[in-house]
Amino acid sequence: MKKVPYRFYLSEEDIPKKWYNLRADMKELPEPMLNPKTLKPATKEDLLPVFCEELVEQELNNEKRYYDIPKEIQDMYRIYRPSPLVRAYNLEKELETPAKIYYKFEGNNTSGSHKLNSAIAQVYYAKKQGVKSLTTETGAGQWGTALAEACSYFNVPLTVFMVKGSYNQKPFRKSVMQTFGANVIASPSKTTDVGRKILEKEPNTTGSLGCAISEAVEKAVTGDGCKYVLGSVLNQVLLHQSIIGLETKKAMDILGEYPDIIIGCAGGGSNLGGLIAPYMKDKLIGKTNPRIIAVEPKSCPTLTRGKYTYDFCDTGKMTPLAKMYTLGCEFIPSSNHAGGLRYHGMSPIISKLYYDGYMEATAVEQTEVFKAAILFAKKETILAAPESAHAIKVAIDEAIKCKETGERKTILFGLTGTGYFDLSAYSSYIEKTMTDYIPKDDELKKYFNELPKIL
Amino acid sequence: MKKVPYRFYLSEEDIPKKWYNLRADMKELPEPMLNPKTLKPATKEDLLPVFCEELVEQELNNEKRYYDIPKEIQDMYRIYRPSPLVRAYNLEKELETPAKIYYKFEGNNTSGSHKLNSAIAQVYYAKKQGVKSLTTETGAGQWGTALAEACSYFNVPLTVFMVKGSYNQKPFRKSVMQTFGANVIASPSKTTDVGRKILEKEPNTTGSLGCAISEAVEKAVTGDGCKYVLGSVLNQVLLHQSIIGLETKKAMDILGEYPDIIIGCAGGGSNLGGLIAPYMKDKLIGKTNPRIIAVEPKSCPTLTRGKYTYDFCDTGKMTPLAKMYTLGCEFIPSSNHAGGLRYHGMSPIISKLYYDGYMEATAVEQTEVFKAAILFAKKETILAAPESAHAIKVAIDEAIKCKETGERKTILFGLTGTGYFDLSAYSSYIEKTMTDYIPKDDELKKYFNELPKIL
Repeated sequence: MKKVPYRFYLSEEDIPKKWYNLRADMKELPEPMLNPKTLKPATKEDLLPVFCEELVEQELNNEKRYYDIPKEIQDMYRIYRPSPLVRAYNLEKELETPAKIYYKFEGNNTSGSHKLNSAIAQVYYAKKQGVKSLTTETGAGQWGTALAEACSYFNVPLTVFMVKGSYNQKPFRKSVMQTFGANVIASPSKTTDVGRKILEKEPNTTGSLGCAISEAVEKAVTGDGCKYVLGSVLNQVLLHQSIIGLETKKAMDILGEYPDIIIGCAGGGSNLGGLIAPYMKDKLIGKTNPRIIAVEPKSCPTLTRGKYTYDFCDTGKMTPLAKMYTLGCEFIPSSNHAGGLRYHGMSPIISKLYYDGYMEATAVEQTEVFKAAILFAKKETILAAPESAHAIKVAIDEAIKCKETGERKTILFGLTGTGYFDLSAYSSYIEKTMTDYIPKDDELKKYFNELPKIL
Repeated sequence: MKKVPYRFYLSEEDIPKKWYNLRADMKELPEPMLNPKTLKPATKEDLLPVFCEELVEQELNNEKRYYDIPKEIQDMYRIYRPSPLVRAYNLEKELETPAKIYYKFEGNNTSGSHKLNSAIAQVYYAKKQGVKSLTTETGAGQWGTALAEACSYFNVPLTVFMVKGSYNQKPFRKSVMQTFGANVIASPSKTTDVGRKILEKEPNTTGSLGCAISEAVEKAVTGDGCKYVLGSVLNQVLLHQSIIGLETKKAMDILGEYPDIIIGCAGGGSNLGGLIAPYMKDKLIGKTNPRIIAVEPKSCPTLTRGKYTYDFCDTGKMTPLAKMYTLGCEFIPSSNHAGGLRYHGMSPIISKLYYDGYMEATAVEQTEVFKAAILFAKKETILAAPESAHAIKVAIDEAIKCKETGERKTILFGLTGTGYFDLSAYSSYIEKTMTDYIPKDDELKKYFNELPKIL
């Protein structure tokens, strides 16, 4: 076995040249999206008003196992990829664990997260199709920043609807997007019908991701040559994000390592789906059997307490219906919730794999998450995004279990991004003003009662 | 010649294991520091109350060419090093230049800059000597963050005096330092004599680096087991920073490249001195003759308009006197100056090399700097620190000259850090509220008149 360095980088030639479509190896496929008017499976024609053509093809194709990554996308990937696979030697030492801890660090680009991997692909296809402008939503701001970066690179105008809470809490996130030339609007806004309606009902709302999605979709379907792009949840996004897992697996293969446990934070599922892709393949074909753990916030417990059913992807109920774990499309996490991972639903692929028992899920409280993040920063020197810190928390827990049992397990987790724009959350933890919130059953029930009734 | 990738990383084994002391190859040495009371060369004994022992040795040793990097320092270097050498293919394409542009990117660590290279070394030696706590100053916040990171890693308590202007403008910088456990105080403060005196004279001052240095030095000499550490200017810092140049040269050697022009931003000179070290060696021994360019702000034009003379390193006139280019130790850049590079003096090594004609210096206006930074962000996807963007500006200018002359020069510049905490400056550029300021001759003369009179 090769001596494992702290940070291992593949060579540029080893960056994967194909994305991997996990659906091609799933025993049972996720249920198809439904057109909410007809309740029939959404067709290419249903999706074309919103998404551009090649992305619709990727969204609906369950058979094609590998997609060639176009040269233009590879060219931009090479500016910040390969991302490092890091051996957390210092964290291991601090925990006195026999476990080997690895993390794939996707934060070493200006957007600060893995979201750039799909942003580049989506902007490229839009540009190729002659789309005049793009629109999207952003919560914590990572997706908006990634998209602004990609749009700037490919010269495509962009409007971002940013969840109002984040817009006010993170003015510098907005500045980064503006630096890359994006038009950033606080959501809900008066620029859309759905925004105006929400503001009438709740003038002081801090917004939600579902609501920002509705505004962006409305802008796309009513605008001239404007298309919508989404940073998570969708099949196409998981396809693009497979580059995370493919790079990780190639690097671990070279190092002679294979994870016993794979851990990823789960909001919409994009990082988790990408990270686990090649390992889940091994598991689906019966080659290996690693534990795969999705980590979510207790304040937005989609997998651990949600329903597996058809629901809208947005608050405004404009999108197709997706079969997924959901808290109900009107669910908004408590305002004291600091990190991302605040989406009411979950990628249909991840949902199906979880439902079928191929993976586990666990929910953690945010004060535990920040405690883990600060320990991690002190020992590994990286200031993690709160989202990513959910995975750190559970990786530490598993490493401590190994200490107790004496097992030398190999733990791999996804460190999706950096927390440079989340410092007010860090401060509130340090100043002990941060609190936890776990929704009561009754509260969740209220939203479950609103779920679409579909047999 | 090997095909040059976008980002080239040395392997971990190739990270340099020795620092290089440029003074060992200088034909004429920088003048020695003077004890301000006796006006005689500062001795080891003069420096020991402030600095710890091994660092004093490094400060004063002009002969020893290479220093072994202690294993504990190498261990922490490996968490974030090697830093990438990047070929700016996209910028080259945008500029339509025949020049080849390379940059050494030191921003890929949480502190966000090259300052960590020296912070680790200084904290390590302090810890080894049993120092109980450390204190320092920080301007833009990069040095304080780096030191907080290193102190947290080695478990050494830290107090940071942060220039008040930055403290208020960059609350998140402060939060990062606090996350790493540092005690951060806005300077001038009421916690020191020198701070109280300055506040009496100018209660509304936004502070200066020189003043923050005075406060930190006072705390070190009056505190119990407390030592002072400084992030730039000193010989020891340039020694530690030589790792930047050594890595760069090793990488360029592997790629079969040698720079015709080397460009670095210059505040106190730490990055520039580190980046150029091995190339300056070649130049000093007559092996090659690359152009070496220091870039500074027109609002703080130390090399281009300062005097080469003895001056205090701090506003409070507590430090030894150094022979250097200086604007006078009471000079404070105009309050509209957004970036760093606001120190009144310059590393004595850099000053001497510049005085002796081994390098050039140029000064640029900040609006030009931010214009270059935004072009760079859009094409190379990295959001540069304003400091670093000074080098970008001149690299672009040189690349454009190559376009005019048709010369295929190899340009290397130091990209010292990221600008995630400088977004209010980016915003002011974007919103066109940023202005330039060039001090009038009369204004500079006022400070020159205050320079110590030494033959």
